[in-house]
Amino acid sequence: MANDPQHLLWPRGFRASAVHAGLRTRSRAPDVALLVCDTLASAAAVFTTNQVVAAPVKVGREHVASGKLRGVVVNAGNANACTGLHGELDARHMCATAAELLRCDPRQILPCSTGIIGHALPMQKIVRGIRDGHRTLGKTPRHAMRFADAILTTDTVRKVAAAQIKLGSSTVRVAGVAKGSGMIGPRLALPDALDEHAIPHSPVPAHATMLAFLTTDARISTGALRRILLGACDRSFNAVTVDAHTSTNDTAVVLASGASGASVTSRADLRSFESAMLDVCRSLAYQIAADGEGATKVISVTVSHAPSESHARTIARAIADSPLVKCAMHGDDPNWGRIVSAAGYATVPFDPLRATLALQGKIVFRHGQPVEFDPRQVSKLLAAREVMIQLSCGDGKSSATCWTCDLSKDYVTINADYHT
Amino acid sequence: MANDPQHLLWPRGFRASAVHAGLRTRSRAPDVALLVCDTLASAAAVFTTNQVVAAPVKVGREHVASGKLRGVVVNAGNANACTGLHGELDARHMCATAAELLRCDPRQILPCSTGIIGHALPMQKIVRGIRDGHRTLGKTPRHAMRFADAILTTDTVRKVAAAQIKLGSSTVRVAGVAKGSGMIGPRLALPDALDEHAIPHSPVPAHATMLAFLTTDARISTGALRRILLGACDRSFNAVTVDAHTSTNDTAVVLASGASGASVTSRADLRSFESAMLDVCRSLAYQIAADGEGATKVISVTVSHAPSESHARTIARAIADSPLVKCAMHGDDPNWGRIVSAAGYATVPFDPLRATLALQGKIVFRHGQPVEFDPRQVSKLLAAREVMIQLSCGDGKSSATCWTCDLSKDYVTINADYHT
Repeated sequence: MANDPQHLLWPRGFRASAVHAGLRTRSRAPDVALLVCDTLASAAAVFTTNQVVAAPVKVGREHVASGKLRGVVVNAGNANACTGLHGELDARHMCATAAELLRCDPRQILPCSTGIIGHALPMQKIVRGIRDGHRTLGKTPRHAMRFADAILTTDTVRKVAAAQIKLGSSTVRVAGVAKGSGMIGPRLALPDALDEHAIPHSPVPAHATMLAFLTTDARISTGALRRILLGACDRSFNAVTVDAHTSTNDTAVVLASGASGASVTSRADLRSFESAMLDVCRSLAYQIAADGEGATKVISVTVSHAPSESHARTIARAIADSPLVKCAMHGDDPNWGRIVSAAGYATVPFDPLRATLALQGKIVFRHGQPVEFDPRQVSKLLAAREVMIQLSCGDGKSSATCWTCDLSKDYVTINADYHT
Repeated sequence: MANDPQHLLWPRGFRASAVHAGLRTRSRAPDVALLVCDTLASAAAVFTTNQVVAAPVKVGREHVASGKLRGVVVNAGNANACTGLHGELDARHMCATAAELLRCDPRQILPCSTGIIGHALPMQKIVRGIRDGHRTLGKTPRHAMRFADAILTTDTVRKVAAAQIKLGSSTVRVAGVAKGSGMIGPRLALPDALDEHAIPHSPVPAHATMLAFLTTDARISTGALRRILLGACDRSFNAVTVDAHTSTNDTAVVLASGASGASVTSRADLRSFESAMLDVCRSLAYQIAADGEGATKVISVTVSHAPSESHARTIARAIADSPLVKCAMHGDDPNWGRIVSAAGYATVPFDPLRATLALQGKIVFRHGQPVEFDPRQVSKLLAAREVMIQLSCGDGKSSATCWTCDLSKDYVTINADYHT
């Protein structure tokens, strides 16, 4: 890590902007944003596996297929989902408007939208927003922060992460911003993998509008970028759940400018780049869980000693998805029975007689039986901003972590009256 | 239906009792209960498919294997789950105590428990309760109602249903009581089917401590009873979700006394008996959803025009499990995008371009696009105690219904401080 301010435009070769175009009616926060690479970037993106996909996801899958993008155009306040053919034309129109200003092919622009489902985009406002955005593109931290703010919906804080690696004498930077607070539980897949993944085979459906925009100044092939993005997403965004509701719009995209001059090609360099990308994605995923709608605490659920990583993740996800577990954590309540029972209905083998469960490092259950503990003491440990649930399956060497937040009354308040 | 008071002891050949044995510390309500058949009954039971099973479920599976039971012994206030070998001995002890008093084989008694996980049963209190219960066995409506009350935990109302059919000159009666309010989303299976079902293959994990006790005075074979119970459960209890958390204790058991003298053997009679059993189970399932923790309304989600019933049920369950949908209904909010997107992440094919969605009979979405409607008017329609969500897939002839309730702040209040 360096001492520079670390933000989306810290990797070299990018500009960004964000303007208030009037899609948000309750605030003057920016709602249309651009992220542009100075050159044609190597690019990869993963998208929701929900079968109901928003128009920008359909168009984005097409556009990223070439592996090259000039930039991204985003709006908040309206998801452009369930808007039919007209919505698709609007998404293409967003790209064409940006492309005309950037003098590039519209297929080199990836569109993203987040907000309410089932309403036509106010295209006049958006077009004006994109034009204003193009005029105000810049490379400063302020530009990066405004971009990060423009994509937020019910989020209460901006989500930013960055990492840097040394490759010989060069440095390669990776940065990202994300949004997501409700309708969160992404299960992202590469668009080319769609035939296999269109119907998620996992028992744990994903959920959320989650958007993530990643930049790097590495010089890297599209193939490597795709593989690394997917791997990082599986261990980060795909491991976050707020309400187990997969969105129609989830997207994570990475642009590689190559402006560092450093090529990532050797095995060792790829591994080190992969690790930086994973760090950034995990940090963003953690920030999403911590800022889940109504959250007062972030919960990490680590399942270890499982036969495989996906086995561990399936159990971790069942625990993280349980409203009963989330309510117990909200109440600082060491109600471990809810955790063990959630592990038992995850759709992979689980033997309570081999398992050990710890809350905040304190063992409360071992080998099918309770361990005596002082509930008041453990309750005090749980009264923290960060809660750790650790379950060992005693049946292998693999582990995985999922992140969620507690379930509070504020989640109900936020979601019982979002539309009308 | 007849004019008699319809309760658990309306079918002939049964007695019941319930006493306050001191397991409940906050009330004087009964917490230990007996249901006894005058003769050795044909019996069938289905149990949770959670891999973490409570001691009474382990013992119950064994005991019902013979297809014959004299009765059932139940306690509330303590689930006897995750209590190790000691818990299993306690469950056997409950059966032995009842069997001694009834002068039958302990294996002819099915034990059930509901309440907190991970605490040893207070056996002294329970044994005394069973003895007191045996002394007070009776056939009156009051006995039936006390039994129904004894099994409740966070439930706010007693759940009872009954049906009667004519078979030639005889009448056959079916009745039932149930409990369940939180940790609800049963996925019950026959114990013999366990090898196949131990790991639920469905993408929608089940949830709840739900107990149901069914009586009938039909003379019917164990084989037919098993098949009919399982079929009825799939379309009733297995279609209810409050919080998508499968319990360690879910059990539904039916005892057939034969006291009506009417044998159910012909195809037509079996069909008519099956339909009565389904009526009783569906009524109980609906009552469970309506009394879900914190519920202010009951929601039925019907998915029609699907390629198969299980296809329809998978989509209905994904919708019914979504906290976002449940919050929207709580807020009388016609936020149909959440419903359509939940259908899209159910793990079976779903094409929004063929689908039609109605809220309270009012179409709000058709063929991939919104239908114009007055949100205030639909919101008024949703401000009802019963809400109907109807989704046609436009892709077949099958349909299925799931029931759930809205998600309110009271659910959080109830569950954030249950243990400590």
